[in-house]
Amino acid sequence: MNNYPQASRILLAIDCIIFGFDGKDIKLLLIKRNFEPEKGKWSLMGGFLNADEDLSDGAARILYNLTGLKNIYVEQLETYGKINRDPAERTVSVVFFALIQIDDHDSEAVKSHNASWITLENRPALIFDHEEMVCKAIEHLKYKAALHPIGFELLPEFFTIPQLQKLYEAIYSIPLDRRNFSRKLLSTGLLIDTGSKNSNSTTKKATLYKLDEVRYKEKFHSFWNFMPDSMKQS
Amino acid sequence: MNNYPQASRILLAIDCIIFGFDGKDIKLLLIKRNFEPEKGKWSLMGGFLNADEDLSDGAARILYNLTGLKNIYVEQLETYGKINRDPAERTVSVVFFALIQIDDHDSEAVKSHNASWITLENRPALIFDHEEMVCKAIEHLKYKAALHPIGFELLPEFFTIPQLQKLYEAIYSIPLDRRNFSRKLLSTGLLIDTGSKNSNSTTKKATLYKLDEVRYKEKFHSFWNFMPDSMKQS
Repeated sequence: MNNYPQASRILLAIDCIIFGFDGKDIKLLLIKRNFEPEKGKWSLMGGFLNADEDLSDGAARILYNLTGLKNIYVEQLETYGKINRDPAERTVSVVFFALIQIDDHDSEAVKSHNASWITLENRPALIFDHEEMVCKAIEHLKYKAALHPIGFELLPEFFTIPQLQKLYEAIYSIPLDRRNFSRKLLSTGLLIDTGSKNSNSTTKKATLYKLDEVRYKEKFHSFWNFMPDSMKQS
Repeated sequence: MNNYPQASRILLAIDCIIFGFDGKDIKLLLIKRNFEPEKGKWSLMGGFLNADEDLSDGAARILYNLTGLKNIYVEQLETYGKINRDPAERTVSVVFFALIQIDDHDSEAVKSHNASWITLENRPALIFDHEEMVCKAIEHLKYKAALHPIGFELLPEFFTIPQLQKLYEAIYSIPLDRRNFSRKLLSTGLLIDTGSKNSNSTTKKATLYKLDEVRYKEKFHSFWNFMPDSMKQS
């Protein structure tokens, strides 16, 4: 049965933008492509959607193959459909956006894919329209992290307010006022004081917090203003 | 040349969610489907992406065919890719979201497609996963209109603050405080006082404004809080 005889069947790719945070910089997980076209060049992690697989399952499969992680923060970003974006064959690509804690990934899986964590500012030229996808994802991260508590997805289970501040400073490339930032974060009611202090630090010890998972899920779609107002009206 | 011999080629549909405002209600432009499967049932306006057409051009083509309008507000919403979403054949659908001024559409084009403007609350059952798409689009409209000035896309060129308030009340199904709302809107600096008054109204005449198009483009990605805080923290 073919109800749609005139319509074209098209290759459908899934490309994944995977952000991590190492305590200092926001990084991107990129791979050196080991197949044609563009073999040997840098690329996002991707693959094709299988005929017998839901789109979201395809994204989860590709992310799992590279990172060894399941149940990470993933959202669909945008679908890219310029005619000649892949020179080998017309391919439409659905881009997904994932946030992971850099320590969580499976380093074996990463290594076997020729993948590396690279800071945003040092990222190499990417194939096809992948640079455009990355720029869009960075904008999306900035937008979303200003309003929603997604930053927590990039932090380890226990974290300090100064760590959280470093994360936000890395996302926006701006210094933030410590007192205002701390007040805004604590006022969300999403942080649980663990009663412990950070022991790594050689300077003043900072309180370790963890995320209130129940409230996080409840409040995820609320919005706050984590960023200074001056920035948002620009 | 076939660089990707194992990959599946898949039908790619484009479905359009078209919102309009008639001064009182938010409405959706829906069509009665005149082909199988699901002939005679209500559906979003859609079609297939052609092999030789960019994805965004495909969306513009489908929107133009139904409404006769070009250069309207369109954004990509999300791509739907459950395996069995179309019972006739595996089809992945990229959903676009359009806002138009209800008077602008070409009523001939609308009629020839068996299309109708239907209020959100009276919308019929829709085929496939179209209801899910519409729910997502309503959420997106609420989210975006709270933070960005997209509501103007639904209004005629000249409008009054009470009209704008009715639009926001229709989007959120809540009454808004006239004074606060007016203050927030005027503080954006996006409205130009035309010096004229609304002459349709039998009650008190209201000032007619128009949008400052230059500032609108500049400030589109800024964000404001058009909605009461109580709503957003829920």
